[in-house]
Amino acid sequence: MQDFCVGDLSFSDTPAGYPCKEVSQVTCDDFVFTGLAMPGDTSNLIKAAVTPAFVSQFPGVNGLGISAARLDIAPGGVIPLHTHPGGSELLVVIEGTICAGFISSANNVYVTTLNKGDTMVFPPGQLHFQINAGDFPALAFVSFNSPNPGLQITAYALFANSLPSPLVEKVTFLDDEQVKKLKKVLGGSG
Amino acid sequence: MQDFCVGDLSFSDTPAGYPCKEVSQVTCDDFVFTGLAMPGDTSNLIKAAVTPAFVSQFPGVNGLGISAARLDIAPGGVIPLHTHPGGSELLVVIEGTICAGFISSANNVYVTTLNKGDTMVFPPGQLHFQINAGDFPALAFVSFNSPNPGLQITAYALFANSLPSPLVEKVTFLDDEQVKKLKKVLGGSG
Amino acid sequence: MQDFCVGDLSFSDTPAGYPCKEVSQVTCDDFVFTGLAMPGDTSNLIKAAVTPAFVSQFPGVNGLGISAARLDIAPGGVIPLHTHPGGSELLVVIEGTICAGFISSANNVYVTTLNKGDTMVFPPGQLHFQINAGDFPALAFVSFNSPNPGLQITAYALFANSLPSPLVEKVTFLDDEQVKKLKKVLGGSG
Amino acid sequence: MQDFCVGDLSFSDTPAGYPCKEVSQVTCDDFVFTGLAMPGDTSNLIKAAVTPAFVSQFPGVNGLGISAARLDIAPGGVIPLHTHPGGSELLVVIEGTICAGFISSANNVYVTTLNKGDTMVFPPGQLHFQINAGDFPALAFVSFNSPNPGLQITAYALFANSLPSPLVEKVTFLDDEQVKKLKKVLGGSG
Amino acid sequence: MQDFCVGDLSFSDTPAGYPCKEVSQVTCDDFVFTGLAMPGDTSNLIKAAVTPAFVSQFPGVNGLGISAARLDIAPGGVIPLHTHPGGSELLVVIEGTICAGFISSANNVYVTTLNKGDTMVFPPGQLHFQINAGDFPALAFVSFNSPNPGLQITAYALFANSLPSPLVEKVTFLDDEQVKKLKKVLGGSG
Amino acid sequence: MQDFCVGDLSFSDTPAGYPCKEVSQVTCDDFVFTGLAMPGDTSNLIKAAVTPAFVSQFPGVNGLGISAARLDIAPGGVIPLHTHPGGSELLVVIEGTICAGFISSANNVYVTTLNKGDTMVFPPGQLHFQINAGDFPALAFVSFNSPNPGLQITAYALFANSLPSPLVEKVTFLDDEQVKKLKKVLGGSG
Repeated sequence: MQDFCVGDLSFSDTPAGYPCKEVSQVTCDDFVFTGLAMPGDTSNLIKAAVTPAFVSQFPGVNGLGISAARLDIAPGGVIPLHTHPGGSELLVVIEGTICAGFISSANNVYVTTLNKGDTMVFPPGQLHFQINAGDFPALAFVSFNSPNPGLQITAYALFANSLPSPLVEKVTFLDDEQVKKLKKVLGGSG
Repeated sequence: MQDFCVGDLSFSDTPAGYPCKEVSQVTCDDFVFTGLAMPGDTSNLIKAAVTPAFVSQFPGVNGLGISAARLDIAPGGVIPLHTHPGGSELLVVIEGTICAGFISSANNVYVTTLNKGDTMVFPPGQLHFQINAGDFPALAFVSFNSPNPGLQITAYALFANSLPSPLVEKVTFLDDEQVKKLKKVLGGSG
Repeated sequence: MQDFCVGDLSFSDTPAGYPCKEVSQVTCDDFVFTGLAMPGDTSNLIKAAVTPAFVSQFPGVNGLGISAARLDIAPGGVIPLHTHPGGSELLVVIEGTICAGFISSANNVYVTTLNKGDTMVFPPGQLHFQINAGDFPALAFVSFNSPNPGLQITAYALFANSLPSPLVEKVTFLDDEQVKKLKKVLGGSG
Repeated sequence: MQDFCVGDLSFSDTPAGYPCKEVSQVTCDDFVFTGLAMPGDTSNLIKAAVTPAFVSQFPGVNGLGISAARLDIAPGGVIPLHTHPGGSELLVVIEGTICAGFISSANNVYVTTLNKGDTMVFPPGQLHFQINAGDFPALAFVSFNSPNPGLQITAYALFANSLPSPLVEKVTFLDDEQVKKLKKVLGGSG
Repeated sequence: MQDFCVGDLSFSDTPAGYPCKEVSQVTCDDFVFTGLAMPGDTSNLIKAAVTPAFVSQFPGVNGLGISAARLDIAPGGVIPLHTHPGGSELLVVIEGTICAGFISSANNVYVTTLNKGDTMVFPPGQLHFQINAGDFPALAFVSFNSPNPGLQITAYALFANSLPSPLVEKVTFLDDEQVKKLKKVLGGSG
Repeated sequence: MQDFCVGDLSFSDTPAGYPCKEVSQVTCDDFVFTGLAMPGDTSNLIKAAVTPAFVSQFPGVNGLGISAARLDIAPGGVIPLHTHPGGSELLVVIEGTICAGFISSANNVYVTTLNKGDTMVFPPGQLHFQINAGDFPALAFVSFNSPNPGLQITAYALFANSLPSPLVEKVTFLDDEQVKKLKKVLGGSG
């Protein structure tokens, strides 16, 4: 409704976003984010990095219904199966080749290989993934129609917290051995 | 905007729902759904049944931003880990005892045991589950703030379609053996 | 946008709901409401009770676009003609038999009798009612697609406040005698 | 999303409004409505007339989230107690003096007298009314934040349709005699 | 969601509007605005005046999705080309004759002449204007489907601030002489 | 609400987007757009090209609240002053250096220089521009929180259609000579 509402993160959040920084204190810098300029560090388990420009990092998007992130995926790397509970995602490949896909709630599979300049859209809240499908680092920029789309990585939700193993097994059909193995890898307890 | 817009499912859907049945053809029956009166059949793998009253079954909710479902969970039964991409869920326990929980995108776990008359809310798009935590059949009614909230069961998305096993393994860290075992159980191919 | 925004009712409300309790202070109990487990007291004029689980009672629904209520209607009881200015309503009969209906703004009448397990949807903002149509207590759970749907009972709006009798008569065509009689019954003045 | 979506009323309505007339067929006339220029006929029971410029009369507002109406109220006239299920209302007095008010769902009464040029806002879905409070004809223009806000006049909903008298009495506490008298006046049956 | 949320302008704004004044402090006066009763002063460059009843002037519309303004246009006067970034506009001519028009983003022109009582709708965010097309003062009331629709007058955006002349020229194709002339007239620098 | 609603552009548009292609006919290709892979042709007046991936070009974004475009700006090139009536914009610089800015409806100017990897957000409906600020071609990808955000270039709205010159002059304060010169350059008539 206002021209804009740069988030003042020192206030409590509200269902519609953070209260606004006073307009007189807002400068052009509030609308600029430089944190996507540098590659993320891909020397990790997934050989990939997601660098978000969500409202927490980039308060200028508060209330504007939009945000972005940078995906760096090294050869062999993967952005594991995940959802964004709060919005649609649109990906543009900047460098490299990416195998990307999503699974609809009707359980249909939509998978393809994307090259430089290709764009793919992922519907809100549905499971999707991106894999480096080439021999060189891949870079993509993604945008969301929410300043705070969330990121729920399935494997981390299952194996990287305190959800007790018997519960995990009950709700996923996975074997106890498998669950315990991955809890060890991903740092979960229980 | 209209008083109501009972869906005419013979038309193509639109992003806001189905075109409306003509008001002169609408009767009170359009606003009533009797399909939740009978228990679902729980003689299956999960010993549970979800009976939806979404727009496909109950066109009267079209455009009204609301729908419902009936959960029957036999002793030992489970509504496996799942999300509703399109809305919040509110559950009321009618009979029995249910262990329910969800995992936030910050990877926090919220689990509890619910008794008759207890209500629990599950935020939109986040992983959650319900398990019969007692020795008797459990019954719950759930409602959603969408006529078409969707239902994406994680195990089915992984193991009950044609998503190739190597892809599943890559995006979940699961072992090949585990994936193939569950594909066999749940009817997946690839 | 966030995972959730449990309302902190010590802050001022906003048009989108209450500011959020800090995530670190949120526990699973915030998402559970036990207040619908007990029957409401129906020993009153309408022989009925509405027990709400709106944001004021159940701050966990804040920002989630959903809420619920429990309807207890003794034999001969009635939930009088009312509207919810802020949302659609979906009712499920748990026990007993209920005569329910609504009137559209085109002035059409949609009335029916609902049995155990039957579901009925009431469009937002329209006049509707529920009456016990049987010889036993009736129980229903209703849900709304708003955490704060409001409840405006027509008879109370007319006769249970300080709206002057001549004004009531002018805007409803009711007789002075009738208005004064019901003001006395329902506690209105003027 | 589009520049505009002039409604093609020959199509079925959808929850978001009518399908759009082809842009190549749209002319400036589609955005202009002349039907509010003439006074409504106030020689009737309520000595008042509501002339709507809703989507049915003015298809140019389709999808634009706005509409208007003209209120003519002769001396002694009244716009009876009513709600607009689908939107907020903003009134500007053009001629005369109007007593206007609304009742909140907390059952508070907000009543005042408005003079030429005064503006009053009525929250969505709440009971309100307008009465000519002077000796001359009153004219007001009202606008709504919906192309199809609906209009539910309480007295007509109760007494001008086929809702059976016993039901009306049960849900309003009105006396049988009163209900039957007003059904006769307003044309109801049952 | 609430009945209403009269804005407390002493708090910081949020993306959904101002926090609410406590209901116990709200009176009917909060819903009434008398500032549109008096003609605006048209003794200025544009021989016209826009008197807003937006949330800043009329906190009662906060959260209600509606607002209004009064347009006074003297003979020869003009409301220059402008947009409202945040909403649709609906205009009713009260006195005089107005030439009004808008340009769609497909670059089509919709221009017409409006007489007393005529209504015109302007889609959100598109360039439009109003000119007195007669020999007498013109008066119109406009409403918006936002409590804070904004007002961006193109000529002021170009010539009445510190946007450097070379930039203005680069992004508009205007000549340096023209830009500097209008910067002088409208008070711009740079 | 649905999983997705790939637009069937053979149907009439609706206020919420196009009716959906049948799910059984949808393939992964519907969610992929390759049209942003090739540079736009910048051998034109503005030495720049905007290549949209809006719903008309990329029906897969229909109903998903998101879209994208590619900006190619040759040295000396400019994306002239424009608005998107229907949404926020988020820009990421892929190559080169871009001077970008917007003007708020409070008439404040926010201008800066963006380098490779920098991100800037432009609030909905406000005037903004992008200029190549370096000696090499610049490339940026932009996204919008609407599948159909619109694009209204101020200079084209003024000088590239049939809006009569006297009207243009009246609503912008521009000189007749300037208007006629630019109408000639940009192809306007009248």
